[in-house]
Amino acid sequence: MYVFITSMKNVARERLIELGKRLAEQIKNKQNPYFETIVRSKSNIISEQGFLELGNKKEKREFVNIAQAKTFMQTIAVANKLKKFLDEDLHTSIRGLYYQLKYSLGEDVDENLFDEQSESNELIEDLEVALNVKREDFNLTTDRKGVLAGPIKILDKFKGEEIVIDGTKMGRSGWMIPSDVDNNMEIIEVDADYVLVVEKDALWQRLNEDRFWQKNRAILITPKGQSSRGTRRLLRKLADMGLPIYVFTDCDAWGWYIYWTLKTGSINLAYLGKEFTVPEAKFIGVTMSDIDKFPFLKKLTINAKEVDLKRAEELLSYDWIRKYPQWVDELNKVLKSKKKLEQDALQGERLTFVGDYIKIKIETGDLLP
Amino acid sequence: MYVFITSMKNVARERLIELGKRLAEQIKNKQNPYFETIVRSKSNIISEQGFLELGNKKEKREFVNIAQAKTFMQTIAVANKLKKFLDEDLHTSIRGLYYQLKYSLGEDVDENLFDEQSESNELIEDLEVALNVKREDFNLTTDRKGVLAGPIKILDKFKGEEIVIDGTKMGRSGWMIPSDVDNNMEIIEVDADYVLVVEKDALWQRLNEDRFWQKNRAILITPKGQSSRGTRRLLRKLADMGLPIYVFTDCDAWGWYIYWTLKTGSINLAYLGKEFTVPEAKFIGVTMSDIDKFPFLKKLTINAKEVDLKRAEELLSYDWIRKYPQWVDELNKVLKSKKKLEQDALQGERLTFVGDYIKIKIETGDLLP
Repeated sequence: MYVFITSMKNVARERLIELGKRLAEQIKNKQNPYFETIVRSKSNIISEQGFLELGNKKEKREFVNIAQAKTFMQTIAVANKLKKFLDEDLHTSIRGLYYQLKYSLGEDVDENLFDEQSESNELIEDLEVALNVKREDFNLTTDRKGVLAGPIKILDKFKGEEIVIDGTKMGRSGWMIPSDVDNNMEIIEVDADYVLVVEKDALWQRLNEDRFWQKNRAILITPKGQSSRGTRRLLRKLADMGLPIYVFTDCDAWGWYIYWTLKTGSINLAYLGKEFTVPEAKFIGVTMSDIDKFPFLKKLTINAKEVDLKRAEELLSYDWIRKYPQWVDELNKVLKSKKKLEQDALQGERLTFVGDYIKIKIETGDLLP
Repeated sequence: MYVFITSMKNVARERLIELGKRLAEQIKNKQNPYFETIVRSKSNIISEQGFLELGNKKEKREFVNIAQAKTFMQTIAVANKLKKFLDEDLHTSIRGLYYQLKYSLGEDVDENLFDEQSESNELIEDLEVALNVKREDFNLTTDRKGVLAGPIKILDKFKGEEIVIDGTKMGRSGWMIPSDVDNNMEIIEVDADYVLVVEKDALWQRLNEDRFWQKNRAILITPKGQSSRGTRRLLRKLADMGLPIYVFTDCDAWGWYIYWTLKTGSINLAYLGKEFTVPEAKFIGVTMSDIDKFPFLKKLTINAKEVDLKRAEELLSYDWIRKYPQWVDELNKVLKSKKKLEQDALQGERLTFVGDYIKIKIETGDLLP
């Protein structure tokens, strides 16, 4: 079998070189060196296509500008390092990049601009947006978190070796979804009808034990809470292959947040736009309405916390959620009852009911948009 | 090849049945039903063997006792459910167990006693200690977190299927270390000289990219911060096979905590004793003394935070740390300089230095106890 394995690394490298040439040209012409990026503030975020993305307001980053000079210089130093990583064919994290800069530039590098814990890494985002390249294509790794199993085969061409990852051969556990699922890696076989995203690791383990993915032809993924960049990208790719993406979370603040971020993105991640969201995703549950269909759940609800109620109210205030009557109804049920429901509760009557529940919900199309 | 695959599940089941019989006998004899467990409070924690474990102070749990009646009843209900899970050959988490109880007993189950987020799940611990059985042997799953790659083969006999997990065939990522690494799972081949435990996922990815595990015959594991139960158990098992366990963390509060918990356990985990600790583990670094050997690191130190300094002082107050002059020296260096060093800093000069550093430290025996 011949598989065409693609990589964006050359494109990323070319764009960095172009940026450098442009700046050198400006300096030669005695211009104030600058580059253009897209405004990432709230005022330039649009949601017309079912996900959050940046509009087309642009802004300049200039060298001769008291407020920007230091950041500008650091950004160019970053671009220089990224090109070096691509030349060397070596990867590192944002923190590794920080230390490379600190080594070259000394104390003059702002540690906080390279904080992996913050969702927003200003300088890297600037380059991603200005050059329209993902950080993964710049050889930057990000933290891994999700796990997969099921009928999927992935050809991983990594450091000269070609390995086939077989999601049906992971036994009691799974393959950790890598940081970069794009470059030199191709999904070569999918024998599944859909992808099931399970919020909690415990439920993933429950379903994996029942061989849910085998019996129901599903790719089983847990992001283990909020999705990593790698997990988001993988889900986007699977959706692009025509697979429905079904999301299964708690009925509470955190569960809704996980679903909506996966589906539409978030304000912080709007700069990533379409490539990191799955607007086609559907919500399986659990929902307060499930109680009507599966009455044993009624006594398994627990008290909603302040954060759950506050979040439900917040979600009801968003246009892109208010347009769905099912969600309005669902969130109002939480607010009225002041109760919540966890996905774990489905195991109350019998442990294997979790899989039955998912089957019923999908087969009857009882899903939220 | 014939592999003898063991399981503790029958033992666990027998002990639950015994407990039930004993209680029934007591009731028949008109005694106050009770069982004995070992005191888990600080006063009964000893550290004579290089790790924290419980002493032999015992205490009774009684039914006819106003303070204990409800908890006693819940514990027996838990034991009953655990036997059911073993009979059904199905696993669930503590949260799943909670909902099974809530389904049977209604509102009368204390949610907080089954909080997966807390390290201490009183009722389960009571049964683990009283019956000398690990929760994994009771078919309870725990959260997964660590990842492995390298020259190790594991035979996983899971739900009737036998699958060989090959740590050299994980491509750019790894196999997620499962919740239970004991029952029906055997390490069938190890072609490694040691195990390298890397605190941060980013550094694991860096070393995996360099194929460090191949070039240096090492099993590469990241617990991704503090180790999960599964990761702790796996490390204990690998140590039992005679493999040295080398730990590589940041030189800061969190890094030291990860190392010492892995090596000696913690007060909360003392009830687990030897099976979840690796007193033989050695500390590679990073250390403040590394600066003398690798001078480029000097300018890559960063300011220690309050928590780092406080933790260093705390560690210096512990007998089991004060007995090691190297650790005293190391912690004093942090307190004096008010600086810390991250493992990521090793990439400052060149990205591939991380692997060289580890090689040098191990080859020259420059390790802390």
